[in-house]
Amino acid sequence: MARTNPNFKNLSKNYLFSETDKRVKLYLAVHPRAKIFNLGVGNTTEPIVHAVIKGLKSKVRELSKRETYTGYGDSAGDVKLRESLSKWYGKRGVEISPSEIFISDGAKSDCANISSIFAPDSRVAICDPVYPVYRDANLIAGKKLIYLAAKEENGFFPSLPEEKVDLIFLCSPNNPTGATAKASQLREFVDYAQENKALIIFDAAYSEYIQEKNLPKSIYQIEGSRKCAIEIQSLSKSAGFTGIRLGWTIVPNDLITEDASGEGEINRLWRRRQSTMFNGASNIAQEGGLAVFSEAGQKETRKQIKYYLENANLIKEGLERLKLKVFGGVNAPYLWAKCPRNLSSWEFFDKLLKEAQVISTPGAGFGICGEGYVRFSAFGRRKEIKAGIKSLKENLRRGL
Amino acid sequence: MARTNPNFKNLSKNYLFSETDKRVKLYLAVHPRAKIFNLGVGNTTEPIVHAVIKGLKSKVRELSKRETYTGYGDSAGDVKLRESLSKWYGKRGVEISPSEIFISDGAKSDCANISSIFAPDSRVAICDPVYPVYRDANLIAGKKLIYLAAKEENGFFPSLPEEKVDLIFLCSPNNPTGATAKASQLREFVDYAQENKALIIFDAAYSEYIQEKNLPKSIYQIEGSRKCAIEIQSLSKSAGFTGIRLGWTIVPNDLITEDASGEGEINRLWRRRQSTMFNGASNIAQEGGLAVFSEAGQKETRKQIKYYLENANLIKEGLERLKLKVFGGVNAPYLWAKCPRNLSSWEFFDKLLKEAQVISTPGAGFGICGEGYVRFSAFGRRKEIKAGIKSLKENLRRGL
Repeated sequence: MARTNPNFKNLSKNYLFSETDKRVKLYLAVHPRAKIFNLGVGNTTEPIVHAVIKGLKSKVRELSKRETYTGYGDSAGDVKLRESLSKWYGKRGVEISPSEIFISDGAKSDCANISSIFAPDSRVAICDPVYPVYRDANLIAGKKLIYLAAKEENGFFPSLPEEKVDLIFLCSPNNPTGATAKASQLREFVDYAQENKALIIFDAAYSEYIQEKNLPKSIYQIEGSRKCAIEIQSLSKSAGFTGIRLGWTIVPNDLITEDASGEGEINRLWRRRQSTMFNGASNIAQEGGLAVFSEAGQKETRKQIKYYLENANLIKEGLERLKLKVFGGVNAPYLWAKCPRNLSSWEFFDKLLKEAQVISTPGAGFGICGEGYVRFSAFGRRKEIKAGIKSLKENLRRGL
Repeated sequence: MARTNPNFKNLSKNYLFSETDKRVKLYLAVHPRAKIFNLGVGNTTEPIVHAVIKGLKSKVRELSKRETYTGYGDSAGDVKLRESLSKWYGKRGVEISPSEIFISDGAKSDCANISSIFAPDSRVAICDPVYPVYRDANLIAGKKLIYLAAKEENGFFPSLPEEKVDLIFLCSPNNPTGATAKASQLREFVDYAQENKALIIFDAAYSEYIQEKNLPKSIYQIEGSRKCAIEIQSLSKSAGFTGIRLGWTIVPNDLITEDASGEGEINRLWRRRQSTMFNGASNIAQEGGLAVFSEAGQKETRKQIKYYLENANLIKEGLERLKLKVFGGVNAPYLWAKCPRNLSSWEFFDKLLKEAQVISTPGAGFGICGEGYVRFSAFGRRKEIKAGIKSLKENLRRGL
């Protein structure tokens, strides 16, 4: 008799975005003519840049001809793409060999799947508030979670775990808080990991939003991290690949665990996992990815990132004019605003929606420590963001 | 201290295709001028058909403009694609609602991930010989495997499990044997599953190769199967999407297990798994998929399948002229040839390679019961297949 995986019962029932969608729909049912301003959406809105469109088109053309058609590729990804990524890391002073890079269909899958190569009884530390995928994927796998509070007093970067842990998920620039870790903060975690033979899973999906030169874009800019850190990356937010799907994971050969001596064992495990359970990212998406790392692609995508950062700045200034306390949004596409007058994050979400028709994302949906905050996102359309800020200014009732 | 997942130690060390590749490379190192004929490859070689190229191009164009750009979609897949699949099933007399369809990046991922929604101590029955993904993914997850022998005397379709099992993986048309299940054979398994509240995972990735009208293309053509079967499908072999990546899984609302009463519970679990750990298939691939199910797309892909089936027939006739006993290759793209004179499958592989420069796939790589057979594939280029058969005829030493 088949039985279901009991771990699914440990997941919270309402998924954040289905609940916000529901409340917006309910509001629209009562106010069918209302104009809604979505400042909460984590979805990109700018089109794919010219250089990348050229890459995508060239692959489609190749697939249409017998002479250039290709089927299955390397499940770790096209070697040209991995070589170009290796060079890209080289330019930021980080040495990563193409064989340490695994192309995937996006950071979400990799963040969710990476734990499967580690012991089922692993103790996994995650930040609170947190991107829900780390939490939910590890709960489904039955792993033990330890929450590391990221609060205002520690700059929304967590302190070291007090109990021993085996795996630590970190994300910088952070989703949802927009906090960006300093080198010294990552240093502490790398030291902890090395001392305890723990591994850091570093989600760097928003690294390209970092503008300040002294902030690390990759965990591998911290010495010693090749022995204790896996890095996960994505083109979703740096090149608009949210729908096209492309990401990658770096698994250094030097990783050391209780049972791996730093001679490529973990790299081989992930290779085995991927070649067994995944058939590679779409070859069209990979050709688009290759174009992202061309000179033109880098120039054009950097411009797009600047555009989103200007959005972030508009939101930041708009909220600050309303005397809200706002974090993030400088080296990150997310802003983390403190709810006024001790409102809960869902109460503030409702207030913003009902009074100004602005959609935010309630912080409580990201964990207990997210309570009392809402997240804003820079990925909306400029026009909608400006109109939303105007509506906040004009319609939000006093007492903010 | 991090530790690795000990289940990986249960996987066999040499992955089948890396070993065949190694032997071919070794042969070429000694005979650098040899012309090799690959009749073993499971990779498609025909280009993407015109109607589908049009679909792919139209999505790339949409992504290039702000007005038509889209990012994240529904993680279960584009609703238009699911609706068109629902109609496609309708035409073969099978009622599947769009909400029971989950679009994915291919059958491999779904075959590997589906077990994760079932209890960790599930007993999983798989055929022997078998597509290695069912075996390896369940071993990594620590599930107990029960092998069902598929031998010549039972037409390479397994008999019912003798002990109680919870999940049963079936594949028809079969990879590697090319055997195609009759309705009566599937009926037996559906009856078993209903009696025991077991679930069948039915891999129908090669269904479009079925030409005989009375052979079932979908498990849902068997009455009662909506209560006990999940079906996994793919466009890899029916539309050349091996590299583009697109598949789908059907999880009926009626599924019954020990703890699910047939009211959509299993469907909701898979939805939760996918929305947590997967961000949807590439939107470009999905638009291509939509075009596959257009009138022109169906016509053109059917023609391509016929072409591959002609390849299969050429191989079948060629091998039979050499007095080999050959199975499959009629309603399936794979052929299963008995090794002559009690040669082992690796010995016969070596003989074919060294004497005629023909690559096959040793049956032993698919399981114990695969010993004594080699697999041929119809997915090669016509010219190479013809030349390979000619070489077999002219160069294979006597005593076959």
